[in-house]
Amino acid sequence: MSDTKRVTAAVPIIGNEILSGRTHDANLPYLGAELNKLGIQMREARVVADIEEEIIGTVNTLRAKYDYVFTTGGIGPTHDDITSACVAKAFGQKLIRHPDAERILRERMAQMDVEVTEARLKMAETPEFAELVDNSISGAPGFRVENVYVMAGIPRVMQAMFEGLKDQLEGGVTLLSVTVGSYVPEGTIATELGLMQDAYPDMDIGSYPFFFDGKPGTNLVLRGPDQARLDEAATKLGELIRNLGGQPVAGGLEVPKSKD
Amino acid sequence: MSDTKRVTAAVPIIGNEILSGRTHDANLPYLGAELNKLGIQMREARVVADIEEEIIGTVNTLRAKYDYVFTTGGIGPTHDDITSACVAKAFGQKLIRHPDAERILRERMAQMDVEVTEARLKMAETPEFAELVDNSISGAPGFRVENVYVMAGIPRVMQAMFEGLKDQLEGGVTLLSVTVGSYVPEGTIATELGLMQDAYPDMDIGSYPFFFDGKPGTNLVLRGPDQARLDEAATKLGELIRNLGGQPVAGGLEVPKSKD
Repeated sequence: MSDTKRVTAAVPIIGNEILSGRTHDANLPYLGAELNKLGIQMREARVVADIEEEIIGTVNTLRAKYDYVFTTGGIGPTHDDITSACVAKAFGQKLIRHPDAERILRERMAQMDVEVTEARLKMAETPEFAELVDNSISGAPGFRVENVYVMAGIPRVMQAMFEGLKDQLEGGVTLLSVTVGSYVPEGTIATELGLMQDAYPDMDIGSYPFFFDGKPGTNLVLRGPDQARLDEAATKLGELIRNLGGQPVAGGLEVPKSKD
Repeated sequence: MSDTKRVTAAVPIIGNEILSGRTHDANLPYLGAELNKLGIQMREARVVADIEEEIIGTVNTLRAKYDYVFTTGGIGPTHDDITSACVAKAFGQKLIRHPDAERILRERMAQMDVEVTEARLKMAETPEFAELVDNSISGAPGFRVENVYVMAGIPRVMQAMFEGLKDQLEGGVTLLSVTVGSYVPEGTIATELGLMQDAYPDMDIGSYPFFFDGKPGTNLVLRGPDQARLDEAATKLGELIRNLGGQPVAGGLEVPKSKD
């Protein structure tokens, strides 16, 4: 909780369907933005297939390297949902049917009037020393083991789980951002921008080119922990843009996201 | 090119803006789907920050592990575009200003009547023994070193580069898919589905639950190299769904993508 401590996170995104292109991941952008609000910086994400050794290796690498790990996907009732078993193995813990999770699931199934099946009860399996994470949407809980949070892949459920667990997280410095846009193309401002980055090593200067309204331009995003420093840098950036014949726009230019 | 050879690929997605949630990656789903058409299976993706040692380590790990690596992002003119320099280091090659790339860029700048800047010429830098990849959209080429293709992050440009390079790729077996949907919930069909997966180890059975029109259901996707085997399995799946009181829908049920 110190003013300058950097707290980091990584996300294993688990599922063949993300790699095949069938499903577009929506969890990384959500978690990247939400974690930053809490003073936790997303540093890496890995999309891995439903293959045991890949999931175990990824979880073990990332939990050693970052303060927090948030897995998404692979905790449903079917044969290809192997995340819970893999996380148990990653920690060398037994996979158990968690009594509280089982109770929650049975209550939910009674409420929804659906049949209690072995497959549905599989969603109560967790590593032996896991702590449950509440799922206000569909019942079946996520869980935490040490610094690893295991969450659903369906965005609405993942977001509900994250809302329920986020008060447990200890953040460090929150990165603030200031955006300045203009129709000065990236290739025109790049050299000066590099010099500015050298002069402000305490912030990241990101450059996002666009082509809009028939003209190339750039949105420049300054990110750092200190609002006064960001404002100072943004002012200099405005001068720089004017010197290059442009008109700086605070907050950046609203342009359509480059898709297709 | 054998009938059964599995050819694999991985994608390092390079850029702080993907991790912060500012930009949504659109390249992984595109590449996952396009590569499969060529008989190349996407096996892993890593989203990494603009940090030299992370990019170098990721490229070296993935190029040893998979047949092909496709990087996206970080080849523009600004200080945070460090992919080319990192790939050169990953291969132990010098970073040079590639003469053909420089010629292409200078011609393009003359055509577009934009100023030749050092920053723009930075986009001509490649590892010493790189082979260029054509960019029909904005000129600045990508490149290949051994099994690593380095491409732009902007989807439209990346796609044009991929179109230009894909004839060079040697695929193996192409995975075909058959989808069967129904309003049988995942938790009802899961156990039988697991038994079916055991009976068909040559295919992957993926289960994608949805909630639509007030009812839960599941789309089941069978993926494998042999159409006759897929059709056989799909027929059995249809029987299974009927036995569980459902009505199988070939091609799956069209439901809105589960977004937040």
